[in-house]
Amino acid sequence: MQNSQLMQQIQFIVEIDRLKQVLRQTLLMDGSRRENSAEHSWHLAMMAIVLADYAPAGVDMLRTIKMMLVHDVVEIDAGDTFCYDVQGNGDKTARELQAADRLFGLLPITQAAELRHLWDEFEAQETPSSRFATALDRLQPLLHNQHNKGGTWQLHGITGDRVLQRMQPVEMGAPQLWPFVTQVIEDCIAAGYLNPAPTKPVGVE
Amino acid sequence: MQNSQLMQQIQFIVEIDRLKQVLRQTLLMDGSRRENSAEHSWHLAMMAIVLADYAPAGVDMLRTIKMMLVHDVVEIDAGDTFCYDVQGNGDKTARELQAADRLFGLLPITQAAELRHLWDEFEAQETPSSRFATALDRLQPLLHNQHNKGGTWQLHGITGDRVLQRMQPVEMGAPQLWPFVTQVIEDCIAAGYLNPAPTKPVGVE
Repeated sequence: MQNSQLMQQIQFIVEIDRLKQVLRQTLLMDGSRRENSAEHSWHLAMMAIVLADYAPAGVDMLRTIKMMLVHDVVEIDAGDTFCYDVQGNGDKTARELQAADRLFGLLPITQAAELRHLWDEFEAQETPSSRFATALDRLQPLLHNQHNKGGTWQLHGITGDRVLQRMQPVEMGAPQLWPFVTQVIEDCIAAGYLNPAPTKPVGVE
Repeated sequence: MQNSQLMQQIQFIVEIDRLKQVLRQTLLMDGSRRENSAEHSWHLAMMAIVLADYAPAGVDMLRTIKMMLVHDVVEIDAGDTFCYDVQGNGDKTARELQAADRLFGLLPITQAAELRHLWDEFEAQETPSSRFATALDRLQPLLHNQHNKGGTWQLHGITGDRVLQRMQPVEMGAPQLWPFVTQVIEDCIAAGYLNPAPTKPVGVE
């Protein structure tokens, strides 16, 4: 029995190697290539450790780190959906639910439930840990875009108002970091990495 | 003061992005490219979660996961040293100590000490958590080489006796996983992915 459990666990470990080949839109800080979802997850887990002092009351650090490690595994089947892609986000939930069933289902049943619960908690955004996790998940690409001089924003024509809106979960999940986020956005606009909100054309109400 | 602490932490978070560009010898499971040390660290942290049932008494799971995330950060300055490279391993310790001083030194002093302590503990191999962590760090590339049909072994002419020796920390740090490891090595030899130990040429004592 233990042996068959181990074989299921090894199969899962082998399968998730594929997350290293799921590319996000975000470029590395030096702009040299796109980031993959496995290294992104590592970076977020490191951020949870380093920024633990700014976690609000009620955040469970082990749970947050596990959530950061697990939260993108579904992308192995569902792919990464660019956050500003309205169409792609339309069926994102259905694709990811199916992926969660298959991928976590590779594990022994109690462990499958444990990891699935972590992912469900992250998706539901109802606990301090999951909100803090999402705050970090938003902050990280902001830092990337700041350091690679507006990479994704420039490529896709994303303006400052949309970035500010996208960063709202930081205000919710890690309020102590919010002044830093607004400062980075201002700095990026001032540096020309990010265009400010479009203004209404003359004559349009 | 808090603001200057946050700036140090952000600087560290930005700096460690470079771990995504440190290439290991190991190929991905499908053999398509070399693995980098950031995605490798993510994979190990996931293995710690998934294989927690096989952790010996005294293993602290949060500590082990943090160790897996942090253990390769020094490679940003020191580079990855191939485990079978005798010359490269000669000055590895000195290079990595210097790297640890600089990289962890970017952080506020108490946090620098905390992360440095994690890395020192991993290097010293005196605690159950650090031994379990190293067991996983050895097991992971074994699985890679099994699935990519002997990638690194074939490239560098590594034989089964050396792999078995390299895997010894699994017997020490995760003894329940040792029978699995020896089975994988036998399977890889049988499949032709790994050459058995060289035999002495005729006439040589």
